Amino acid sequence: MSFPGIEDERFIRGDVPMTKQEIRILTIAKAQIEPNAIVWDIGAGTGSISVEAALQAKDGHVYAIERNPEGIGLIKRNAEKFQVKNLTAVEGEAPQALLELPSCDVAVIGGSGQHLDAILDLISSRLKKGGRIVLNCITVQTLASCLSYMRSHQAVFTYEVIQVQINRLQAVGPYNMAKAINPIYIATCQKVRDTGGI
Amino acid sequence: MSFPGIEDERFIRGDVPMTKQEIRILTIAKAQIEPNAIVWDIGAGTGSISVEAALQAKDGHVYAIERNPEGIGLIKRNAEKFQVKNLTAVEGEAPQALLELPSCDVAVIGGSGQHLDAILDLISSRLKKGGRIVLNCITVQTLASCLSYMRSHQAVFTYEVIQVQINRLQAVGPYNMAKAINPIYIATCQKVRDTGGI
Amino acid sequence: MSFPGIEDERFIRGDVPMTKQEIRILTIAKAQIEPNAIVWDIGAGTGSISVEAALQAKDGHVYAIERNPEGIGLIKRNAEKFQVKNLTAVEGEAPQALLELPSCDVAVIGGSGQHLDAILDLISSRLKKGGRIVLNCITVQTLASCLSYMRSHQAVFTYEVIQVQINRLQAVGPYNMAKAINPIYIATCQKVRDTGGI
Amino acid sequence: MSFPGIEDERFIRGDVPMTKQEIRILTIAKAQIEPNAIVWDIGAGTGSISVEAALQAKDGHVYAIERNPEGIGLIKRNAEKFQVKNLTAVEGEAPQALLELPSCDVAVIGGSGQHLDAILDLISSRLKKGGRIVLNCITVQTLASCLSYMRSHQAVFTYEVIQVQINRLQAVGPYNMAKAINPIYIATCQKVRDTGGI
Repeated sequence: MSFPGIEDERFIRGDVPMTKQEIRILTIAKAQIEPNAIVWDIGAGTGSISVEAALQAKDGHVYAIERNPEGIGLIKRNAEKFQVKNLTAVEGEAPQALLELPSCDVAVIGGSGQHLDAILDLISSRLKKGGRIVLNCITVQTLASCLSYMRSHQAVFTYEVIQVQINRLQAVGPYNMAKAINPIYIATCQKVRDTGGI
Repeated sequence: MSFPGIEDERFIRGDVPMTKQEIRILTIAKAQIEPNAIVWDIGAGTGSISVEAALQAKDGHVYAIERNPEGIGLIKRNAEKFQVKNLTAVEGEAPQALLELPSCDVAVIGGSGQHLDAILDLISSRLKKGGRIVLNCITVQTLASCLSYMRSHQAVFTYEVIQVQINRLQAVGPYNMAKAINPIYIATCQKVRDTGGI
Repeated sequence: MSFPGIEDERFIRGDVPMTKQEIRILTIAKAQIEPNAIVWDIGAGTGSISVEAALQAKDGHVYAIERNPEGIGLIKRNAEKFQVKNLTAVEGEAPQALLELPSCDVAVIGGSGQHLDAILDLISSRLKKGGRIVLNCITVQTLASCLSYMRSHQAVFTYEVIQVQINRLQAVGPYNMAKAINPIYIATCQKVRDTGGI
Repeated sequence: MSFPGIEDERFIRGDVPMTKQEIRILTIAKAQIEPNAIVWDIGAGTGSISVEAALQAKDGHVYAIERNPEGIGLIKRNAEKFQVKNLTAVEGEAPQALLELPSCDVAVIGGSGQHLDAILDLISSRLKKGGRIVLNCITVQTLASCLSYMRSHQAVFTYEVIQVQINRLQAVGPYNMAKAINPIYIATCQKVRDTGGI
């Protein structure tokens, strides 16, 4: 199956927070990953987005960057579980950890560890023209920084941002009641002009 | 202070679910409780809405109906804590438990225990003209039943319904991230025609 | 491109309401349409979901059922615009219009015109085992009917329901402010047991 | 009636944007306006919040600051319509327009015209100890600025922020469907330490 939307409970998780199914679906859809795409998944956590991206980029490759060793272990186990061969877990912190990687068609940012501007600068120089950055923001500050960056780089990027709030209905006896999932902002940025980077 | 919006943590709670501050504020506001109002709070739980209603109806009276004995205890303790004298806890199940009560100006329904139609019929006959019913629906089925009732009693009631979703920002290090509260529907029904009941 | 998420403004629309991009993405993802799938899109409107489904079911076929002749015209024009050959527009009203169609792997319901139970009964008998129904509910009554149906057919179907609320950020001078899109419920039902239908 | 929650359509509006009823209710509740309070309503727009605040502060006074002359006219007309005597419309731009006003117990900020930090600095020095600032943020940038200010003034202020999303059900034939209202963030800040200002 090449379609995103693996159920949350199928991933091996430990205590690492994981992007919920619906957010993963929208993230992957907004990223528009072509079959031969090179994808960076920055702050990959459990690797749930990396796995879904790797299933899309079946003739390409996904680099899952994560600073937490527990996360690196989970990424490898999930890659194995979903039989994904085109996924490499990279232990380290962005932007430094990105320097050795091949240029990318898509960068997904799940976590930026207070280095968002430096990460965006580096992606900016290494993302192919037409390529996309999809940034999942769970904090107001990351969202504001992303907006500020995109506003000051409008010559290079177009962007759109959505906030997504999902409630799941749960059955309780004869009733169904809504259980809220924390909302998230998804920023999608497309590199529309070349910056002369490599 | 006659204003609603007591902080959640000030109420004595136990394990009984409690209406969150913002929902309580909107519920009380939609109920438009006059100083001399008689209020029924049906499915009163911890009594948090009863207490807020009693602070509004300072020359009136609030009857807090609750079938759970633990709730009855909490209602009494909260009434004492907030020094509310015009609040009577009534142990029992609606609609039966409502039969002995004086007619009301406002009925708040927090829980209806699968007897919504019977409860609305009884309120219908005992609510004063111009009076209001405010129904907090956490389930789809209760919302649908309420809409169905109001649609078939349009000669007696006008109604409006809102869905409220609140996210609270939490500070995590240098960041603020949203924590979702489960959404709720609030139906406000006004008796615009007299039904000949007492 | 085989990935869902065509931008709203690329579809030819007229005055017919159209499922917004993010809802379309989630609907298609929840439907898990295999390359050789037969898909019924009931209440197809502009055909935006039909087109996305047809791009997924590239070796299968999509039947777009719509009672509104203006919709039928739009479906055909959108199929042409997106060069989709495996999509047939069927003018008529469900469930009657479904009787002549081949059995399906997936049924998407965007509109049910007050015949939801009859439509679900018919799909029930014509959906292959393991197949999915994805129902977009914009009304409380449709949601309640769907839940009621699924609860009384638990021997045949498993189901899950989410509510999705999307806000889009809009740039206004130096600011970005949220513009709300009306929320929607998405029910996903899987036929887990065979009913002996054809 | 001393209770907030005047229906939106009762205010005289023109083309000036107005805070919706439920947001007004929550804003007024979070502000905890005592009967003798002095209230500044900064960026008062149509005066809908000013009028509700004046009904609370019945022995106090509300100053409605607005730079748009059309707004000033509407504030005066709404004060008259709701027979509010303790409300003064002040034409001008904050923070300058605030300099002449008596110190306040509560400041509500509906619009800050890119001067948020200067306005918060001024309020900071003129707000009584224990007093509250309630800030309605419709933009990400205003929210981020408010959070940044509160984080760097934690010796003076405590704060909480909620996001509120309201959907109103509309009747369409036999159905009720949700119509979304744009979400808003409400920041409530309490001055817990005196800053030596007047």
